[in-house]
Amino acid sequence: MIPTADVERWLCEDVGHHDVTNQVPGETTGRLVAKEAGVAAGLEAARAVFEYLDVAVLDSLTAGTAIEPGDELLRVEGSARDVLRGERVAVNLAGHASGIATRTCEAVEAARKESETVQIAATRKTTPGLRGLEKRAVVAGGGDTHRLDLSHMVLVKDNHIAELGLEDAIAHFRERVSFATNLEVEVETVADAARAAEAGADVILLDNMTPAETREAVEELAAFDVIAEASGGIDLETVPAYAATGVDVISMGSLTHSAPTLDLSFRTGN
Amino acid sequence: MIPTADVERWLCEDVGHHDVTNQVPGETTGRLVAKEAGVAAGLEAARAVFEYLDVAVLDSLTAGTAIEPGDELLRVEGSARDVLRGERVAVNLAGHASGIATRTCEAVEAARKESETVQIAATRKTTPGLRGLEKRAVVAGGGDTHRLDLSHMVLVKDNHIAELGLEDAIAHFRERVSFATNLEVEVETVADAARAAEAGADVILLDNMTPAETREAVEELAAFDVIAEASGGIDLETVPAYAATGVDVISMGSLTHSAPTLDLSFRTGN
Amino acid sequence: MIPTADVERWLCEDVGHHDVTNQVPGETTGRLVAKEAGVAAGLEAARAVFEYLDVAVLDSLTAGTAIEPGDELLRVEGSARDVLRGERVAVNLAGHASGIATRTCEAVEAARKESETVQIAATRKTTPGLRGLEKRAVVAGGGDTHRLDLSHMVLVKDNHIAELGLEDAIAHFRERVSFATNLEVEVETVADAARAAEAGADVILLDNMTPAETREAVEELAAFDVIAEASGGIDLETVPAYAATGVDVISMGSLTHSAPTLDLSFRTGN
Amino acid sequence: MIPTADVERWLCEDVGHHDVTNQVPGETTGRLVAKEAGVAAGLEAARAVFEYLDVAVLDSLTAGTAIEPGDELLRVEGSARDVLRGERVAVNLAGHASGIATRTCEAVEAARKESETVQIAATRKTTPGLRGLEKRAVVAGGGDTHRLDLSHMVLVKDNHIAELGLEDAIAHFRERVSFATNLEVEVETVADAARAAEAGADVILLDNMTPAETREAVEELAAFDVIAEASGGIDLETVPAYAATGVDVISMGSLTHSAPTLDLSFRTGN
Amino acid sequence: MIPTADVERWLCEDVGHHDVTNQVPGETTGRLVAKEAGVAAGLEAARAVFEYLDVAVLDSLTAGTAIEPGDELLRVEGSARDVLRGERVAVNLAGHASGIATRTCEAVEAARKESETVQIAATRKTTPGLRGLEKRAVVAGGGDTHRLDLSHMVLVKDNHIAELGLEDAIAHFRERVSFATNLEVEVETVADAARAAEAGADVILLDNMTPAETREAVEELAAFDVIAEASGGIDLETVPAYAATGVDVISMGSLTHSAPTLDLSFRTGN
Amino acid sequence: MIPTADVERWLCEDVGHHDVTNQVPGETTGRLVAKEAGVAAGLEAARAVFEYLDVAVLDSLTAGTAIEPGDELLRVEGSARDVLRGERVAVNLAGHASGIATRTCEAVEAARKESETVQIAATRKTTPGLRGLEKRAVVAGGGDTHRLDLSHMVLVKDNHIAELGLEDAIAHFRERVSFATNLEVEVETVADAARAAEAGADVILLDNMTPAETREAVEELAAFDVIAEASGGIDLETVPAYAATGVDVISMGSLTHSAPTLDLSFRTGN
Repeated sequence: MIPTADVERWLCEDVGHHDVTNQVPGETTGRLVAKEAGVAAGLEAARAVFEYLDVAVLDSLTAGTAIEPGDELLRVEGSARDVLRGERVAVNLAGHASGIATRTCEAVEAARKESETVQIAATRKTTPGLRGLEKRAVVAGGGDTHRLDLSHMVLVKDNHIAELGLEDAIAHFRERVSFATNLEVEVETVADAARAAEAGADVILLDNMTPAETREAVEELAAFDVIAEASGGIDLETVPAYAATGVDVISMGSLTHSAPTLDLSFRTGN
Repeated sequence: MIPTADVERWLCEDVGHHDVTNQVPGETTGRLVAKEAGVAAGLEAARAVFEYLDVAVLDSLTAGTAIEPGDELLRVEGSARDVLRGERVAVNLAGHASGIATRTCEAVEAARKESETVQIAATRKTTPGLRGLEKRAVVAGGGDTHRLDLSHMVLVKDNHIAELGLEDAIAHFRERVSFATNLEVEVETVADAARAAEAGADVILLDNMTPAETREAVEELAAFDVIAEASGGIDLETVPAYAATGVDVISMGSLTHSAPTLDLSFRTGN
Repeated sequence: MIPTADVERWLCEDVGHHDVTNQVPGETTGRLVAKEAGVAAGLEAARAVFEYLDVAVLDSLTAGTAIEPGDELLRVEGSARDVLRGERVAVNLAGHASGIATRTCEAVEAARKESETVQIAATRKTTPGLRGLEKRAVVAGGGDTHRLDLSHMVLVKDNHIAELGLEDAIAHFRERVSFATNLEVEVETVADAARAAEAGADVILLDNMTPAETREAVEELAAFDVIAEASGGIDLETVPAYAATGVDVISMGSLTHSAPTLDLSFRTGN
Repeated sequence: MIPTADVERWLCEDVGHHDVTNQVPGETTGRLVAKEAGVAAGLEAARAVFEYLDVAVLDSLTAGTAIEPGDELLRVEGSARDVLRGERVAVNLAGHASGIATRTCEAVEAARKESETVQIAATRKTTPGLRGLEKRAVVAGGGDTHRLDLSHMVLVKDNHIAELGLEDAIAHFRERVSFATNLEVEVETVADAARAAEAGADVILLDNMTPAETREAVEELAAFDVIAEASGGIDLETVPAYAATGVDVISMGSLTHSAPTLDLSFRTGN
Repeated sequence: MIPTADVERWLCEDVGHHDVTNQVPGETTGRLVAKEAGVAAGLEAARAVFEYLDVAVLDSLTAGTAIEPGDELLRVEGSARDVLRGERVAVNLAGHASGIATRTCEAVEAARKESETVQIAATRKTTPGLRGLEKRAVVAGGGDTHRLDLSHMVLVKDNHIAELGLEDAIAHFRERVSFATNLEVEVETVADAARAAEAGADVILLDNMTPAETREAVEELAAFDVIAEASGGIDLETVPAYAATGVDVISMGSLTHSAPTLDLSFRTGN
Repeated sequence: MIPTADVERWLCEDVGHHDVTNQVPGETTGRLVAKEAGVAAGLEAARAVFEYLDVAVLDSLTAGTAIEPGDELLRVEGSARDVLRGERVAVNLAGHASGIATRTCEAVEAARKESETVQIAATRKTTPGLRGLEKRAVVAGGGDTHRLDLSHMVLVKDNHIAELGLEDAIAHFRERVSFATNLEVEVETVADAARAAEAGADVILLDNMTPAETREAVEELAAFDVIAEASGGIDLETVPAYAATGVDVISMGSLTHSAPTLDLSFRTGN
């Protein structure tokens, strides 16, 4: 669901108080076309922009569709004025989201070389205002959203542990969260990973470990019913090495904060 | 000016309905520290986040400051609960904006090898919701905002020209815009560049030309009082070649839509 | 965190375009006082109302504190005009939330007669616009928030099962949700409870079962690592019987949608 | 009129960033059905929720209609995804408002045993954010809105009287309010009731008086062209006794702040 | 109460995405000074603008104060950047409101030549978005707000009467409105004025009558306990003639929709 | 583009919590009719109000159309309830904007007596919240928007010059603004006009000069490629004298801050 208030804010931001170049008569069609290969995402937001402007959306790809140069992602029809008004915002949204989906897909493919099952997950390192759009783009690319916000899953971090001690911190938060909420613990050593699992964590975040350390931790955790997640500066180069460790999840901030846009163009007229 | 409504939306998006991990007693300090070299930007937004939460901002770098790994960009002090609440949003904003400033600075430096005066400009290809933040980040990196929204400068594009003819399109829009507003015309040939200048354009956008064509157009335009801008898929590799053509402005969508984040970390406690 | 936009909306709704009765000179203090026994909640919202109006909050009880008639929940000081402006909204918020906390506490106490560990949980049957306030009030009363929104935990319901079949529905959604998200399945028979657990549900919702059926289902589920939740028209009268079944969680919509306000009064002056 | 911004806020609050359970293909119908007897209200808000989601509203009851278990209040048709998205919010709104209408109707019926004409009125003790919805629900139940906000009618209260004196306070506010606005005075004694009427009040609020005192005051006020209102902790039990006093209006905060929801269920499919 | 959201919208509208002229170092003072005589109003809005920008408001006149050229209405102190940012919006608000207050004062003075008691009232013909500001400006000028919105007082108009008949229309709406709400009836003949009073209207709006007809209607209405209001194209020239008729209220749309701004200037520095 | 959020705010402001007079059955048509001659504007806002209410807009005049008494500006059709709800807000918007367009047209006609080419421009002295509406109304009347906001064109003012010196202030801001943005300098003497042009200003604002001084400055500026603008208290009386000076632009704050409404009436039914 793309809130109307967001669409309106995005359009007002781009149009300003008095745009004369949109004063074009007649009807037109518009096509959003890929200029490079990738994975489509963000089209529900691009649709919402055009629908807000009363431009008919004739067709659009499903999020997650692999696209080649020349493929059409979205087709619209309406007054030239309104098609032109929506064009830039729609392209910015779809290009941004498709860039994230494409980067995620590349990471998943890199990981698949070494593991059939490892999940590639995003983080909370998203662009302010676009959390939902970006998380859905990660899913479109074959990734996992990871936690959606601070209320979705508890993450016990180093500062909590420093203050309360590892076991007490876990107990402290377990007591305070709903049965509906999972509890993850961030650790930096194999020993702490085992302690956290022992103390009842649902997920163990193995932070900034080497692949070798990660593998060791994963083996240590095999005895527990926990999910093991590797994180910390992992990129497309290093993701296979982590995938090979047997870890369940690899999370990468770069999926959302550093993916380049997917190059799309918007063509009006026939 | 960072609107309170934006800050609130960003924070609510990240916090959700019930976050227990922020339930930490006591006061703390927080420091936003660079993990790689670059150019600082977006700190006015990070400040606004903390100020919304009644966390005191003790110090922050000026936008545009060059930073090295380990440099401190921002220092805050307040209740641990509120510092932790603001941390992620503040880092996301500052990292994103500093990434854009850094990329812009790299483009400016690349261009300076061939031209003392060429301006490196952004486009309207910004992230929806963050137009102002990103434009200011471009300025922090030594770049030019280019037009801020559709109402700021008229850009006569191919579809206008296709419908009205080049000279008539220029006359049509000149009649409709304020004396306060400049008028730019997008052309794809040297001949059209001269025609547009003749017809009274203030700025000529040389779209998708090779450096050689660009140079030819620049020479042709020397007879007119116009600004010449090169655009279309120019990147860090090709920017020096365009800078060498004598063009006044080079605009690059990648400054805002494809700059990776600058790696920053937020450290709490003493 | 109480968004400023909410506080502003609540106050504007109550004040209207031109209130003359607030045109009172001088400074005053105000005290929010209980007229009946219960559990305090919602005071962070009442604080936010007064702080928006620049009225100083001198003291306030912690959410979850048991209160007796005559106890003071909140004390403020400021211009008489602004204290009067905030009074009604603050009382409405605190009375509503404290009513929920009090009702929750009663349900927990009723359940404790039969079980030391059963959790009393709320549902999504909250008052639109007040989800966070009401969930936190449930926590203040000793209850569990249950899922905060649709994205927090997956609940596979009868219509999903009708369409896909129980096992396939579980597999379908497991594949689509994050590792961070739990998956609950709503069942109406003991047999289905076991099937759902077998198929990998994290939580089994035993819907509209009698205490006897619930007990049978709980015994059946003992072989699995699942959480068992009873729901469906359970009230203060029937909660002990369900608590006695050994179920892990009892959820009650009435905690949020039918709790009467806690009777509070606001006294100004000395 | 239900503002779009409210509908959007209610839906976003319930859906969160990424709900997968709504990912259901096909079209469906939905029916809002009563599980207990009462009075329908809030359906204009439930309609607005579905219309926002582009779900067709085929039929809905008029506010104020008496309903029996099994009666259908609202019927909708649309994509299963959108019907499911709106369901919970629509039920929460309609159940809440119908609960208020039902409670109001009970109070009116109780009062009718002793008086043909007495009005049962709400107060400003409404749920923040839902003032209009709740006031209209009171009307649906046969009650009177009383003042809608502070600007609608002046209420001279004890603190005003303490500061200025009764007659002077009335004169003070009469001078400051529009001819369009009525002026009510809150009194606690029969003597003050007469003084207030003498001084020109339009409405006299007899606060926290017994039925006997109320009757005495009503008789005293018969000589004046004023409306007499009884208020202060009056409930379904005590309302007939107050109705019998001849008072014109009985106001009850409990209509809005303590009415339990009306039990409604939403059934999808055929 | 000036909502923060309004202040923010006004400022963003005026500043745009990137204003460089406010990039001025240092602290400054600012003074809002009258360039012509009139009545001060709107200063609470001007204050709110500066307070939003963290500019200290050192002093400001009370709404309704008569001012002469050179008089200072408001004095502020803060960073030059923020004083400059707020200047234009503050002047626009205060000038607009003071213009309305001044025009109202002129109308009141004109009416006073013929009547000691007649009220000069505004209408609902206000500038969208500024209802409260303008109604308060009318009060500052010595006028009456008249009804604040459609819910404040019922106005039975010609189309209602055409459909239901005069007496039935009054009965219809009397039954539907709160005891707290007055009921006004718009009539165009003396005979209908009397019928409306007879039927129980609280206020009679004598629409588009000549002063002679108005006087006749006022005499006819003397027998009833009603308020008589004259309306319809009355201006500063004709207001004394209407005041002389003995009518209770004269309402003038021009107070809010056609009052020129009061000429104010904003002076920075010492 | 009229944001939905604005339409909603305007309607809520006028309707309040519970309006009963709109409770009118059946369908109706409504016609917005001129009661005096002028220029139509603001109809896109009036349309947006009715469309928000699902009232069909059958026909409306184009902004800028000259109208005579009795001319129809807008025709709508829909449920009587919704037509009545939108009526007042629509009239207020269209009357306000048409008043500005009419006043602008009068100023243009006055100027045309002395100059074929001079532009009549508005200023930033607009009504807060209505910048876009008012600027477009000025265009409808044949005027020029002038700068839309602070980011649209730089205006170097006296306080900048006082601090930095004229030439340095121009250089300072030229360095800081985009090539896309024009730079205007406010001067009060002929000598400074020439200095500003020499220093590279694009536009020279001749502030508070007499027509004679203005003419002298215009002659002085003939040697430069600059636009000359006259401003400062120019009204319908004095505009021809300024037009005769040869200045390019005359700006008048009164177009937006002091234009009386155009008298329009809204007629429902047949």
